[in-house]
Amino acid sequence: MKRLLNSAAVALLLSGAAAYANESVTTAIGDTGQWAIQTGDYANTRYSELDQITKDNVGDMRVAWTFSTGVLRGHEGGPLIIDDIMYVHTPFPNNIYALDLNDEGKILWKYQPQQDPEVIAVMCCDTVSRGVAYADGMILTHQADTTLVALDAKTGEEKWKVKTGDPAVGETNTATVLPVGDKVIVGVSGGEYGVRGRVTAYSLADGSEVWKAYSTGPDEEMLVDPENTTVLGKPIGADSSLNSWEGDQWKIGGGTTWGWYSYDPELNLIYYGTGNPSTWNPSQRPGDNKWSMTIMARDADTGMAKWFYQMTPHDEWDFDGVNEMILTDQEVDGEMRKLLTHFDRNGLAYTLDRESGELLVAEKYDPAVNWTNGVDMDPESENYGRPDVIAEFSTEQNGEDTNTTGVCPAALGSKDQQPAAYSPDTGLFYVPTNHVCMDYEPFRVAYTAGQPYVGATLSMYPAPESHGGMGNFIAWDNINGEIKWSLPEQFSVWSGALATAGGVVFYGTLEGYLKAVDAESGEELYKFRTPSGIIGNVTTYMHDGKQYVAVLSGVGGWAGIGLAAGLTNPNDGLGAVGGYASLSDYTELGGQLTVFEVP
Amino acid sequence: MKRLLNSAAVALLLSGAAAYANESVTTAIGDTGQWAIQTGDYANTRYSELDQITKDNVGDMRVAWTFSTGVLRGHEGGPLIIDDIMYVHTPFPNNIYALDLNDEGKILWKYQPQQDPEVIAVMCCDTVSRGVAYADGMILTHQADTTLVALDAKTGEEKWKVKTGDPAVGETNTATVLPVGDKVIVGVSGGEYGVRGRVTAYSLADGSEVWKAYSTGPDEEMLVDPENTTVLGKPIGADSSLNSWEGDQWKIGGGTTWGWYSYDPELNLIYYGTGNPSTWNPSQRPGDNKWSMTIMARDADTGMAKWFYQMTPHDEWDFDGVNEMILTDQEVDGEMRKLLTHFDRNGLAYTLDRESGELLVAEKYDPAVNWTNGVDMDPESENYGRPDVIAEFSTEQNGEDTNTTGVCPAALGSKDQQPAAYSPDTGLFYVPTNHVCMDYEPFRVAYTAGQPYVGATLSMYPAPESHGGMGNFIAWDNINGEIKWSLPEQFSVWSGALATAGGVVFYGTLEGYLKAVDAESGEELYKFRTPSGIIGNVTTYMHDGKQYVAVLSGVGGWAGIGLAAGLTNPNDGLGAVGGYASLSDYTELGGQLTVFEVP
Ligand SMILES: O=C(O)c1cc(C(=O)O)c2c(n1)C(=O)C(=O)c1cc(C(=O)O)[nH]c1-2
Ligand SMILES: O=C(O)c1cc(C(=O)O)c2c(n1)C(=O)C(=O)c1cc(C(=O)O)[nH]c1-2
Repeated sequence: MKRLLNSAAVALLLSGAAAYANESVTTAIGDTGQWAIQTGDYANTRYSELDQITKDNVGDMRVAWTFSTGVLRGHEGGPLIIDDIMYVHTPFPNNIYALDLNDEGKILWKYQPQQDPEVIAVMCCDTVSRGVAYADGMILTHQADTTLVALDAKTGEEKWKVKTGDPAVGETNTATVLPVGDKVIVGVSGGEYGVRGRVTAYSLADGSEVWKAYSTGPDEEMLVDPENTTVLGKPIGADSSLNSWEGDQWKIGGGTTWGWYSYDPELNLIYYGTGNPSTWNPSQRPGDNKWSMTIMARDADTGMAKWFYQMTPHDEWDFDGVNEMILTDQEVDGEMRKLLTHFDRNGLAYTLDRESGELLVAEKYDPAVNWTNGVDMDPESENYGRPDVIAEFSTEQNGEDTNTTGVCPAALGSKDQQPAAYSPDTGLFYVPTNHVCMDYEPFRVAYTAGQPYVGATLSMYPAPESHGGMGNFIAWDNINGEIKWSLPEQFSVWSGALATAGGVVFYGTLEGYLKAVDAESGEELYKFRTPSGIIGNVTTYMHDGKQYVAVLSGVGGWAGIGLAAGLTNPNDGLGAVGGYASLSDYTELGGQLTVFEVP
Repeated sequence: MKRLLNSAAVALLLSGAAAYANESVTTAIGDTGQWAIQTGDYANTRYSELDQITKDNVGDMRVAWTFSTGVLRGHEGGPLIIDDIMYVHTPFPNNIYALDLNDEGKILWKYQPQQDPEVIAVMCCDTVSRGVAYADGMILTHQADTTLVALDAKTGEEKWKVKTGDPAVGETNTATVLPVGDKVIVGVSGGEYGVRGRVTAYSLADGSEVWKAYSTGPDEEMLVDPENTTVLGKPIGADSSLNSWEGDQWKIGGGTTWGWYSYDPELNLIYYGTGNPSTWNPSQRPGDNKWSMTIMARDADTGMAKWFYQMTPHDEWDFDGVNEMILTDQEVDGEMRKLLTHFDRNGLAYTLDRESGELLVAEKYDPAVNWTNGVDMDPESENYGRPDVIAEFSTEQNGEDTNTTGVCPAALGSKDQQPAAYSPDTGLFYVPTNHVCMDYEPFRVAYTAGQPYVGATLSMYPAPESHGGMGNFIAWDNINGEIKWSLPEQFSVWSGALATAGGVVFYGTLEGYLKAVDAESGEELYKFRTPSGIIGNVTTYMHDGKQYVAVLSGVGGWAGIGLAAGLTNPNDGLGAVGGYASLSDYTELGGQLTVFEVP
């Protein structure tokens, strides 16, 4: 049941560089019948070679079985399936269930950590968790309170645990972790609390810290080499971050790392994005606020930065740059290139050369995007790689205590953490998007450790003069920078997509539908109403020779925070409550796994 | 879509007595496509005339859609379906959702009462609710805190509300209510708190109290007529309750009324059973403790008692008599009789003449039952109608602080509240049963209002020397007092059954399976694993010309109290925690509706 390796992986095996990767992980991922990493593969494609479920038979799909997680609120991420065991995680308190697929899903073990519920108060965007990871016979879980735990995958027994942050100063965790080589790489949340973003590598053997790379600050703390770390092909230079902040502001400057991580075993580079600079009031933090809002490529062994690219210098809208980096090998102008494609919150989709960090494409992936005219693509320009900000929508230029209205996208971006999928069969990216705009009024705020450091009042609403809904599910051509097709949705598509060799693409909706569409045309082939809104990511696996599709339901996340946290004031939930208020006419809190089959 | 009226209803229509019933209720029930009362009909048969889903096609059944209730813990009862609206209720806090079946289940309105969570502490057996009722265009909900509320069925707007009890003294509610004529009849829970049981009728128009009938105490407070109220055909006599207690003990004597209610429109009688006498330590309350553990037939208009039958005088095992009374018209010895069939907690199934209260059959419906040799059926005997108690299993005779071991059934009975179904097609009753035994050690306890007044330590375990499981699903012949077939189950069957004209019987299991079996043979035809353990009751309805089957999942109730309340000490949960400990290997807390169809 070995996966037909896709071209990136083939190249890597030929080059003999696979030793860098974690062999247990590559083996587990290499088994097409499994789903061994949240992102589907190291490249983050969320593509499966499984092809039993096709565009011709997906209409006959039905629910095979279900499982309640026993926890309510937002269920992000999805189950892992390894060695006929399914690992299901929950939001806070971050329980884990190991279900025996050979025994009708009987619970083999469960892990129910005791966490101080106080941490919930400092989680910005619901109590979500984007799931567990697997390596070396262990399940790795990074809890809301930043405890990183390694469990025996067969028994659930604790092997080691380590605290990676301090909730007392607003440091929390929602992300999954990335096992690479003999290490596991973890991020931190807290951009709304002035947390200083960083990525840390711990030893898989015992949880000891190996390296740590901050998003801001002195070069040595950022693991930046002024000469050899590049930005758009040029050396980054000394003190690049320090020079882009006033005084010590970088210490409370955000750039958190709560999104997805990718890995290229051949280049031995990890890729991720950093979040917004703190506070949301741009006037309070002059400068480019480096390296918030940045794509980072780092050596997996040492953490040393290879290249950076800052998408939104001096952010004025909370356009965190943490969305996933999807690694593909594709032809560009007749030449095979190692690409990285990234759908940023700011509404632009970027295609870069992932080896060099060269910027190839930067185009709007939602026509509603209005804060910029686009990115300066002229390598000779002094603004090379910078977006051209339109004054009307600049919350900095309009100033503190002025309500800048009609900015598109809203703070949660044209896409938030919900990951896209890539199909090598069509060469298209399948992107769950938001179609939401906002009013944004910055105000002066003082920093107190552990207290919100936001400094802006927001309200959100569907993109005006469009189809009236708050989302689209689109197919994107990353070479030409074009939307191929776009399916309007009533609410933001807050669920991660899945593309399969069966020519089918799956995604979930905030009302709770699982939908299957034709990868070529976008035609809807199947839909089913799961118990609650879907913000989980769709996965697929084989068991006993049969393909299954699985997804977690449980409305929440930033978009669903009104329902999840019981908020009703429209400006609450950082402005999301009002925008998504009508979601409560469609769904209620949940926490369920639904597994589908074609009989 | 009018239901072919069953013989009881035909008789009643012919007699012209229907005016006594609530016309809006009989009309709603009369529409076969609806499910307008928790019990399926006034007779409590849980039988549906729908026959699209048959024993031949039920194997193709699949999930049509699902809905998360947003609440965890035990989900008893089931949805009502009236006028293309589905009404789904939850356990505490007793939310209600009105789902528009014509608009993919969109939430038309929801009712989310604010209840003091303190009431949870005085609910004996989880935060369950057995569901809402419908009458006169209103949805009637009786909350945990004993608030009875009438809501406009179309809008959810409150019409009136009234408090029927006082949680401060341990009075709570879990039962549904019975709308009859211009009244709605409600019970009370709290047998474990020394609550004095009673049934109260409120005006449907404005919630004002019309009559109240206590289970214990002076004749006038019990609405008993010493001459005309009968017991096994004889006048009850004066002070029948007072004479059966020591001193004032009847005031804290239990006999609560938390079970199901039936109604015979022709006789204009309501039927229900009363619960255990308080405390569980029998030595502390000498006498027959009348009228705890009693089937009561009362005039619906006045509450006046027509007849009583006490099944377990001077209870020594907590064998509450509240289980449902199923009203059927069947041939006995060549003569049509108006029957009442009742599966008591004590392990005996009783068939009575529901007009006269005559006892026709009393037989064990689980061969494990060992505390009695059976009931004295000789009308001339002074023990006529009394069970013969076996000394070895008498917790009274063994005395306080002695552990009486191996009593079958356990306190939760051979059946608890989970209602059986009756099919007129087969003439059989389909009974979800417990196959559980116990050790029971009574101890002296003092009464303090609002504090537990239990006085016994229990442990429970599967019936020894049997199939190892804790339940059976059986078919029962109520005329001959015989088990027709019995399906072993690993856990107690805590879900209510449904019998249909398609020849299929449905029930749910504590692990979470919905099962369909052949009504004749018991052969398993279909099973599906719903998200959580099922303690809800299966219902069926039509929409747009298609038959659906619906059930609530959400493990809990007394059997599931360990999971529901997070208890792990085996003796906790009144002894149920240890017995059902392994349930946590199969399921987790939930709260979901699953709707099935045959495509
Ligand atoms: O700045 C941060 O540290 C941080 C953390 C998180 C998070 O941990 O979930 C989110 C965000 N920011 C954020 O900006 C955002 O849009 C967001 C959405 C979600 C979600 O899970 O739905 N989390 C977060
Ligand atoms: O004596 C009472 O008032 C009382 C109340 C209840 C209840 O309200 O649920 C139960 C019981 N007793 C009881 O004995 C019992 O077995 C029981 C099971 C359940 C259940 O819903 O699973 N409730 C109750």
